[in-house]
Amino acid sequence: MARDRTGLWLIGVRGSVATTAISGLAAVSGGLAPPTGCVTELLDADLPPWDSLVVGGHDVVSTPLAKRAEALAEHGVLPYHLPARVADALNAADAEVRPGYDPLTHRGSQAEAAGRLAADITDFRERHGLARVVVINVASTEPPVPARPEHDDLDALEAALVDPARTVLPSSSVAAYAALRAGCPFADFTPSTGIALPALDQLAHRERLPYAGRDGKTGETLLRTVLAPMFTARALRVRSWAGTNLLGGGDGATLEDPAHAGSKLESKARGLEALLGREVTAPLHIDNVPDLGEQKTAWDHVSFEGFLGARMSLQLTWTGLDSSLAAPLVLDLARLLAAAHAAGEVGALGALAFFFKDPLGSDEHRFAEQTRELHRWAAELR
Amino acid sequence: MARDRTGLWLIGVRGSVATTAISGLAAVSGGLAPPTGCVTELLDADLPPWDSLVVGGHDVVSTPLAKRAEALAEHGVLPYHLPARVADALNAADAEVRPGYDPLTHRGSQAEAAGRLAADITDFRERHGLARVVVINVASTEPPVPARPEHDDLDALEAALVDPARTVLPSSSVAAYAALRAGCPFADFTPSTGIALPALDQLAHRERLPYAGRDGKTGETLLRTVLAPMFTARALRVRSWAGTNLLGGGDGATLEDPAHAGSKLESKARGLEALLGREVTAPLHIDNVPDLGEQKTAWDHVSFEGFLGARMSLQLTWTGLDSSLAAPLVLDLARLLAAAHAAGEVGALGALAFFFKDPLGSDEHRFAEQTRELHRWAAELR
Amino acid sequence: MARDRTGLWLIGVRGSVATTAISGLAAVSGGLAPPTGCVTELLDADLPPWDSLVVGGHDVVSTPLAKRAEALAEHGVLPYHLPARVADALNAADAEVRPGYDPLTHRGSQAEAAGRLAADITDFRERHGLARVVVINVASTEPPVPARPEHDDLDALEAALVDPARTVLPSSSVAAYAALRAGCPFADFTPSTGIALPALDQLAHRERLPYAGRDGKTGETLLRTVLAPMFTARALRVRSWAGTNLLGGGDGATLEDPAHAGSKLESKARGLEALLGREVTAPLHIDNVPDLGEQKTAWDHVSFEGFLGARMSLQLTWTGLDSSLAAPLVLDLARLLAAAHAAGEVGALGALAFFFKDPLGSDEHRFAEQTRELHRWAAELR
Amino acid sequence: MARDRTGLWLIGVRGSVATTAISGLAAVSGGLAPPTGCVTELLDADLPPWDSLVVGGHDVVSTPLAKRAEALAEHGVLPYHLPARVADALNAADAEVRPGYDPLTHRGSQAEAAGRLAADITDFRERHGLARVVVINVASTEPPVPARPEHDDLDALEAALVDPARTVLPSSSVAAYAALRAGCPFADFTPSTGIALPALDQLAHRERLPYAGRDGKTGETLLRTVLAPMFTARALRVRSWAGTNLLGGGDGATLEDPAHAGSKLESKARGLEALLGREVTAPLHIDNVPDLGEQKTAWDHVSFEGFLGARMSLQLTWTGLDSSLAAPLVLDLARLLAAAHAAGEVGALGALAFFFKDPLGSDEHRFAEQTRELHRWAAELR
Repeated sequence: MARDRTGLWLIGVRGSVATTAISGLAAVSGGLAPPTGCVTELLDADLPPWDSLVVGGHDVVSTPLAKRAEALAEHGVLPYHLPARVADALNAADAEVRPGYDPLTHRGSQAEAAGRLAADITDFRERHGLARVVVINVASTEPPVPARPEHDDLDALEAALVDPARTVLPSSSVAAYAALRAGCPFADFTPSTGIALPALDQLAHRERLPYAGRDGKTGETLLRTVLAPMFTARALRVRSWAGTNLLGGGDGATLEDPAHAGSKLESKARGLEALLGREVTAPLHIDNVPDLGEQKTAWDHVSFEGFLGARMSLQLTWTGLDSSLAAPLVLDLARLLAAAHAAGEVGALGALAFFFKDPLGSDEHRFAEQTRELHRWAAELR
Repeated sequence: MARDRTGLWLIGVRGSVATTAISGLAAVSGGLAPPTGCVTELLDADLPPWDSLVVGGHDVVSTPLAKRAEALAEHGVLPYHLPARVADALNAADAEVRPGYDPLTHRGSQAEAAGRLAADITDFRERHGLARVVVINVASTEPPVPARPEHDDLDALEAALVDPARTVLPSSSVAAYAALRAGCPFADFTPSTGIALPALDQLAHRERLPYAGRDGKTGETLLRTVLAPMFTARALRVRSWAGTNLLGGGDGATLEDPAHAGSKLESKARGLEALLGREVTAPLHIDNVPDLGEQKTAWDHVSFEGFLGARMSLQLTWTGLDSSLAAPLVLDLARLLAAAHAAGEVGALGALAFFFKDPLGSDEHRFAEQTRELHRWAAELR
Repeated sequence: MARDRTGLWLIGVRGSVATTAISGLAAVSGGLAPPTGCVTELLDADLPPWDSLVVGGHDVVSTPLAKRAEALAEHGVLPYHLPARVADALNAADAEVRPGYDPLTHRGSQAEAAGRLAADITDFRERHGLARVVVINVASTEPPVPARPEHDDLDALEAALVDPARTVLPSSSVAAYAALRAGCPFADFTPSTGIALPALDQLAHRERLPYAGRDGKTGETLLRTVLAPMFTARALRVRSWAGTNLLGGGDGATLEDPAHAGSKLESKARGLEALLGREVTAPLHIDNVPDLGEQKTAWDHVSFEGFLGARMSLQLTWTGLDSSLAAPLVLDLARLLAAAHAAGEVGALGALAFFFKDPLGSDEHRFAEQTRELHRWAAELR
Repeated sequence: MARDRTGLWLIGVRGSVATTAISGLAAVSGGLAPPTGCVTELLDADLPPWDSLVVGGHDVVSTPLAKRAEALAEHGVLPYHLPARVADALNAADAEVRPGYDPLTHRGSQAEAAGRLAADITDFRERHGLARVVVINVASTEPPVPARPEHDDLDALEAALVDPARTVLPSSSVAAYAALRAGCPFADFTPSTGIALPALDQLAHRERLPYAGRDGKTGETLLRTVLAPMFTARALRVRSWAGTNLLGGGDGATLEDPAHAGSKLESKARGLEALLGREVTAPLHIDNVPDLGEQKTAWDHVSFEGFLGARMSLQLTWTGLDSSLAAPLVLDLARLLAAAHAAGEVGALGALAFFFKDPLGSDEHRFAEQTRELHRWAAELR
């Protein structure tokens, strides 16, 4: 794919994760930093080179990327001097930002909204002569959405979308719908509904497009998918797995609202149960602690039983910078989805379960197995 | 193998690990407890049933097993009421305990000592009509031993052993030598030299015997072999991995002596380097904290670098009961070595790397890969 | 007071805390164990000797103390062999247990209920020729109670109590009312309402009785009252103080009900704010984790700001056995209230703030100041 | 003292602590930052105003303060934009830096060296018309020094100092000697020998000068002096107190050398024993972990025994920026020693034990008592 140029269209392009990804892409392309945290560097696969990626996106906020990058540098997410060094790349991406879909201000049907979003992406692709554009949702988490019959059937959905009086899809799913309509592979890095609806899966198949999701696995859950299989392999009986997450930044504010936290807590719980093969006491909390800023601290307490009922425990404290963990994975997904699209892959890519808390198209939560599957799949793509 | 009866001969049969293993074997055979922590229960393999195992062993101490079991119950290693319930089994095993080799009191050559040890084992096998006897070293850790030319050549070794004036082998290796001479598979659950000498490997091949080792992976190292591959798979750069181990019990006392700790620290360091593919700052301490009794607490602090040099960390605190973690693995090794012997396997069993910090016959330290290899190998044994 | 004999009447006399206290009192009196954890041993004061205490109490459950003690020994709260050694003392106390007040089954007015409870205590005092009886509430936590006008005025309260149709007081306050009516000093070791009502304070003064409370300070809060003053004294700015409590046992079950947890969480929060002199982000959780049994594990994460806004943190993990921490303090309170009563002290004893999360009669939450005040007060009692 | 101008002369003026102190003094004086971490702000005392302090010092390195400040900002010790804002103050201080005493390059007697150092300080005082100059040692830690008879007697010491062939004092003590000879109060913020010699105490008394030390209490030890008294006050028996310190930066490199670590470990151990009133198992490690940079992470594991021998534990993880914790205390000491000098105090100021791991002139290690004593003393200074 070395000669193609690939577009990366980010939903929530002015957020922390996107800003970190754009700054980092420029740094890596320009040889200012090594691609630490970029998994695709470890794969034996034919992927778009870093410098072949062109970035744009949708957002509802107007803070320029350069300003946001400065703030991230102050919080230790970006190196002290990087924002100045990649200013051109940040400004170039800023020039490709288009207003996102805002259900509160939008007038007209959701079909019209989606049409406009799709047109923005198509225009981006054409102006830059891109072989393809990968769309990735890194906007903030939405509350869980009540199921509706239209979500299960594409025709019913499209009929409903044209009705100006109705709002059948959450914003994340409008973005996914628009991406598919524009002929773009899509990935959901958030726990929001996004593309995870039968009707959108039907659309992806109709349009012959691959997609992946959801909820990037960047911290506590990453550890759980690594450690839970250890207990299983050693026949040790986990009796309880308690967790507390302290989050600052926008994410913390969003998730302190139980309605928003709901979807994230659910996907975490699903994973743990799948890993241990049965239910365990697993209280889990997400607390908003603004002073932590970009930092996320998670404490897990695992109580387990060994031979003859011996009681033992494991405690973990993870202190991560969420944007620093997410950004390289977002760039990885852009390269992988582009390659999958070029290779003609269609539908949910279960082989990308490695990246997600709540993998679409796969029931595999064990990290080691996900890793092996990713490598196998990537090698066969060529 | 359902009809065979198998012997389990423990070197250090009156220590905590052995006492826990013997009590647990009786409890599991008698349906008093589930085989929690016994990995062989997860394998699709033809192994000796629990109730076909008969236990005996060598030791230099004289405290009866029943008394030791009582002490372990007081420390929460054994269930409150178990010692009374398995008193018969403990007494039966006690009746099969023979004096171990003590270099300080032994008169005569090491060959004579080994001859007597081998005779004890042979006698045990014959009196009980056992198909085979698996010998496992669970005695306390020895200091590292200086290399000698005799260690590399069987003939030279056997020539030296008959010289009453010389002491060419550490006790653990005398025990291994005796086991092989008695035609028994051998496993080294400690970091001591034991069977890990070229000359003894030659003997194992000459006698067509399988063996495994060394240094049971029961705590901090288990976590490291699970977590280090996670950092690698995510392309995160581990910058330092500091560890502190607080041990009570005999083990703590033995290991506070730097000479003894040496071998254990070396095997831990080797593993971490192999896992991360390069050296990292990795200070490691083992402290004797008698009041912790049978408990072992390990704290690890991992400092790692993510995208664009972002600095993050992971902390772990493991609180385990070492004997409770080791005992079921010792029973697993007895079953696996018996099956390997029956199947005609010879030499170091790399497929058992799963069990050890410093695997003999394998360079694989990654836990997930070790697990898969164990399952594959066990399934093919049948 | 050496010649007096003192009664200790426990509300919830068959719970973990009471059973541990009774077993321990017998062990200490009999020289089977040192009075570790008994603060009164450090005081220069004239207090009732251990062997002058006689125990009885009210409870709604019927499990004999000896049986309960056995269970506590299995969980490591009591020494392995202690229950057998103090069987006589446990049985003697069992013989002094009377049915507690159960609002669900009680027929008649609360005044009648209180009258019966008071009669039980008076009878106990007379049969044993006790100089006085100290009543301490160690029953499980009640949900917070809505304020009522009768709670603020003794006459109004007593008028309401005689009305069979009304339930004006929670069980803990009925017990406190009965204790005062029986002429007994009272202490509230739980966060329940108990004696913390103006009307009952009026009664205590009318009856010339001292009392203390509430909510025994045994774990996370103890640490907070020690550490928060450190940050203040060093002019370090605490920005957030997050806490998670994992509880097994009955307490965990009671407190997982948010209604019950409410009162405990409130008293914890009040304390932290008082200590830091201002509000901080302080998410706090109490989770029921049954497998932890008698153990209580608390994790605190303190984020603080130093010179020039430098961001730093402190993490704590406390692993305690709640009954082991509470029991000696209950015995201390018995001795101290007896001495205070003998010395003619009346009303809320602020000098006992040392013992409580939510001290009655004092605004002092700083542990070092509470300690000094306790020592001063005790020395002056003589 | 409002009208006086006071000099602050730092030994090791270009190190992290000094650079942070100088940057912060400028920021606080200029109203760019609040005096967070400055204890003197909490005292009711008459102290030199921030803007009356003038800084200079000795150092053997030549990196300009402005450059060092930039590096500290990159490590999050100083705010992102501060170095630029306080550039003038940093340059002004740089102009007052004189070459420190380097035993390796010095030619001539130690008396001559001290004479030159004293002259630098006197010249500084006169050029700026300062009422007094406080000298504080913040240079890196020295190895413990063997005792010599000259250390105990001032006349013998001065006789030896003039002998060009002899080196009787470590650099830190030469600096202390010079300070006293220049008529300056002195404080030792490091564990080095410095002024802690009988002969120098004699000199301080002869010159009627106050001094304080030693080894600033900024992290793990601070916690220990707060927590150990809690266990004592609650009659809980600490059985072991294990600690591991991970240090980056120059300090880590210095202390990884056991010879240097020796003095620090000794002073920590002395403190713990004094606090608990008896010896406990207390393994303590200091590891050099360069990637941690300015950060210092300490893990403590306290195992303690409660009622009836119940075993419980407390774990602490402290993550601090050492320079951010030390710098405000250095500024506090400058103000306090200046006030003490103005008030005519002479000799070791035990009332400043609050600041030190190994307090000179005091046996009090309990933090709460140290705090009260500091406040009392400061209030009486006026």
